[in-house]
Amino acid sequence: MCAKKEEEQQLGLTVSKDENFSEWYNQIVLKAELADYGPVKGFMIIRPRAYAVWESIQTFFNARIKEHGVMNGYFPLLIPESFFKKEAEHAKGFAPELAWVENKDNSEERVAIRPTSETIMYDAYSKWIRSHRDLPLRINQWCNVLRWEVKQTKLFLRTREFLWQEGHCVYTTKDECDKEVKLFLDEYKKLCEELLAIPVLEGKKSKYETFPGADYTLTLEALMPDGKALQMGTSHNLGQGFAKAFKIKFLGEDGNEHLPWQSSWGFSTRLIGATVMVHSDNKGLVLPPKVAYNKIVIVPILFEKTKEAVLKETEKISKKLKKFNPIFDKRDTHSAGWKFNEWELKGVPLRIEIGPKDLEKKQAVIVRRDTNKKTFVKLTSLEKEIEKELDAMQKDLFKKAKNFLDSNIIEVNSWDEFKKAIDKRNFVLAYFCMEETCEEAIKNETTATSRCIPFNQKNKDGKCIKCGKPAKEKAYFAKSY
Amino acid sequence: MCAKKEEEQQLGLTVSKDENFSEWYNQIVLKAELADYGPVKGFMIIRPRAYAVWESIQTFFNARIKEHGVMNGYFPLLIPESFFKKEAEHAKGFAPELAWVENKDNSEERVAIRPTSETIMYDAYSKWIRSHRDLPLRINQWCNVLRWEVKQTKLFLRTREFLWQEGHCVYTTKDECDKEVKLFLDEYKKLCEELLAIPVLEGKKSKYETFPGADYTLTLEALMPDGKALQMGTSHNLGQGFAKAFKIKFLGEDGNEHLPWQSSWGFSTRLIGATVMVHSDNKGLVLPPKVAYNKIVIVPILFEKTKEAVLKETEKISKKLKKFNPIFDKRDTHSAGWKFNEWELKGVPLRIEIGPKDLEKKQAVIVRRDTNKKTFVKLTSLEKEIEKELDAMQKDLFKKAKNFLDSNIIEVNSWDEFKKAIDKRNFVLAYFCMEETCEEAIKNETTATSRCIPFNQKNKDGKCIKCGKPAKEKAYFAKSY
Repeated sequence: MCAKKEEEQQLGLTVSKDENFSEWYNQIVLKAELADYGPVKGFMIIRPRAYAVWESIQTFFNARIKEHGVMNGYFPLLIPESFFKKEAEHAKGFAPELAWVENKDNSEERVAIRPTSETIMYDAYSKWIRSHRDLPLRINQWCNVLRWEVKQTKLFLRTREFLWQEGHCVYTTKDECDKEVKLFLDEYKKLCEELLAIPVLEGKKSKYETFPGADYTLTLEALMPDGKALQMGTSHNLGQGFAKAFKIKFLGEDGNEHLPWQSSWGFSTRLIGATVMVHSDNKGLVLPPKVAYNKIVIVPILFEKTKEAVLKETEKISKKLKKFNPIFDKRDTHSAGWKFNEWELKGVPLRIEIGPKDLEKKQAVIVRRDTNKKTFVKLTSLEKEIEKELDAMQKDLFKKAKNFLDSNIIEVNSWDEFKKAIDKRNFVLAYFCMEETCEEAIKNETTATSRCIPFNQKNKDGKCIKCGKPAKEKAYFAKSY
Repeated sequence: MCAKKEEEQQLGLTVSKDENFSEWYNQIVLKAELADYGPVKGFMIIRPRAYAVWESIQTFFNARIKEHGVMNGYFPLLIPESFFKKEAEHAKGFAPELAWVENKDNSEERVAIRPTSETIMYDAYSKWIRSHRDLPLRINQWCNVLRWEVKQTKLFLRTREFLWQEGHCVYTTKDECDKEVKLFLDEYKKLCEELLAIPVLEGKKSKYETFPGADYTLTLEALMPDGKALQMGTSHNLGQGFAKAFKIKFLGEDGNEHLPWQSSWGFSTRLIGATVMVHSDNKGLVLPPKVAYNKIVIVPILFEKTKEAVLKETEKISKKLKKFNPIFDKRDTHSAGWKFNEWELKGVPLRIEIGPKDLEKKQAVIVRRDTNKKTFVKLTSLEKEIEKELDAMQKDLFKKAKNFLDSNIIEVNSWDEFKKAIDKRNFVLAYFCMEETCEEAIKNETTATSRCIPFNQKNKDGKCIKCGKPAKEKAYFAKSY
């Protein structure tokens, strides 16, 4: 018994969420087998249980963007040096993080691994687009990108390589471009809220936080339990700068040549990290049912005398419940309690317990991972009840996260209040002059940055929280990942 | 009219399949907008119409492998130099084609872009596998790989970067490993035949053609219309060599430490190239309906007087047929004939023509891309008839390709016959001693290699077609891509 208890302790988390949030998160990611460190510094292995979350994100999002006429494609991993030099702001933004490939052949140009694909995609677009009839052009790419970060690695949140999607669209008019920059932000919001059960704040980025080369950037920001903001996805209006740099032109209906308008939008595997952080607890991983690959675990309660009969019946039940990808945990080397702990740690949304007495009564026990609520249900209605509980859990996780977000937004009117609120790790809403110098000053003093400027503000004129100059809009500030 | 005719000519293919197969293939790939050359030599852009084929391959195959307990994951792009040195055969096989990344930091080990992921996955496996209870372990990865080829680029077939899946499994026994090496080959065959409508020969690779580091390799080989063989997918039994090199061990039920058995299996985006080659014709691309994203194109037949009414009605019909992802070609800048040519070139399986007289008769015309067969159908049964035609086309394409394969297999009994048959571009079946020296001699003299050794041969003893030494088995030979 002693050895088993030791194993059990090793299996579980050794710190709580409040005690050491960062270590708590790391332990969940590693012990729930979501990810592991790669052999090269800054690189991550995405293990199957987490990759399944990514696949459910892909399925959800692909269906949505295809409704809007977006098609997926694939562009090369390696980008010629000259491409990075074509759009000055963009080049400056990515230069320090590029990984260059050793020349195999001196006659060939130096190439880097893509940090993002604007340049290589727009070079192709310039060949493909001839007429207004070729527009709008909407292509999305699911791929790996590489940015040689020097900061400390954080699984899913800060790694040198990550997976993402990047959508790149071209339009004839600014108006069309503006509309769809917002459209894809709306799709991101749907994804965050309906699939990942994570509520978000939406708005525009300040100049300081705008994507290098973009006219403006829209963003979604979520609040992690440690009070830090996490950027969930961004949608950029690139204006006509890239079109100019890459010579993308189209013949308009008027018979003249025009520069098109462009947008790009992306989210990455950091969404998996956000999902883990927002919902998990001190027992381990909690996943929204919609993204959990194994939605249920069936634990037969085994006693020496009835073991065989119980295994036989529960195996049958497991087969009937195939659509939930059940884990059927029939091990007789571990106690039921040990199994409960293991599957709680690993974030299976529902546990189905079935013992000999349950079989006599033709019932099963459903236990919810998030609330630990037990429900006794008839075997005949088990499938329906599982669906009900999964649905309820999905909704409750969102509600809980929404309450947390709402109760951690503070509006302030003075710099002192601002500093106190930021220290307490909130989203802090305040008048802001939007100047880059002011934003830098705020960052230097508090480590917080503006996260987003909410849409459609109906404020009276106010004064910037930091410099006191006239300000027309408020912005959300927070410390961030 | 003159300008339009010119445009039309440019749009279509300028060579026939028989005249110049290689150029015919290139033109289809480029003009049907399946792929384009990237800016760096040897790199390819996969355009949406082809990427959709890849997505349908992924959907089909993911569903199949998940039935067998395989989960998808993701491992790092960059692999440390020391990893390549651990398994000698494997290292030798890939060394010349590695692309190294410039060191950002001299304290870090030199790294290369993955040419395949055995080494980096098995390093992780050695940490994850402890007990026989952790086995079998079955992980698949969809990713990009890079091999710095020097041969001439051929879109989809030979590029430095390509997309693929690589499955990597670990088993307690040789028997289990053998069984699943064959199981995944069987799944590949299903994929080729049921989805891509490409018949294949199956068998084992000769030593000369075996994957570096594997005990043996199973393969599927298809015949292209130019008489060259194309390897469609391979499944390797890696034996225990990698386990030894990467220190993968497990505690058996007997309480002792054991080396596990391993397999890997992969296919790549060259399957898209094979699909294009096998089915297309002198009018352009022909795709099996199951992998075509736009399964139908609706061409309203427009005359000045009835234009508005026809457009209105056909648009309604198009909306009703949404499940086929219809292209609704309502352009009034191009003639119907021009549109027919364009969508034939681009490989839309069915064309639906609807003119004013058809609407009067409440009918439409369905035209099949592969046979040009016209069918008049009632609008009320249009959806059902489309499904029927798509289904028939899928089956007919396979039958046609199967007839071609069957009629191009020749069994020979002398070296003279062998050379003649190889020159005529067939799959040539002959007794073979399986010696590497003999295979090299055959290759040097004919440029053909052994493609596979069929399973379960029931031959009498024979003599090797080349060296005349005793041979127990026959092998298929062909020139290959």
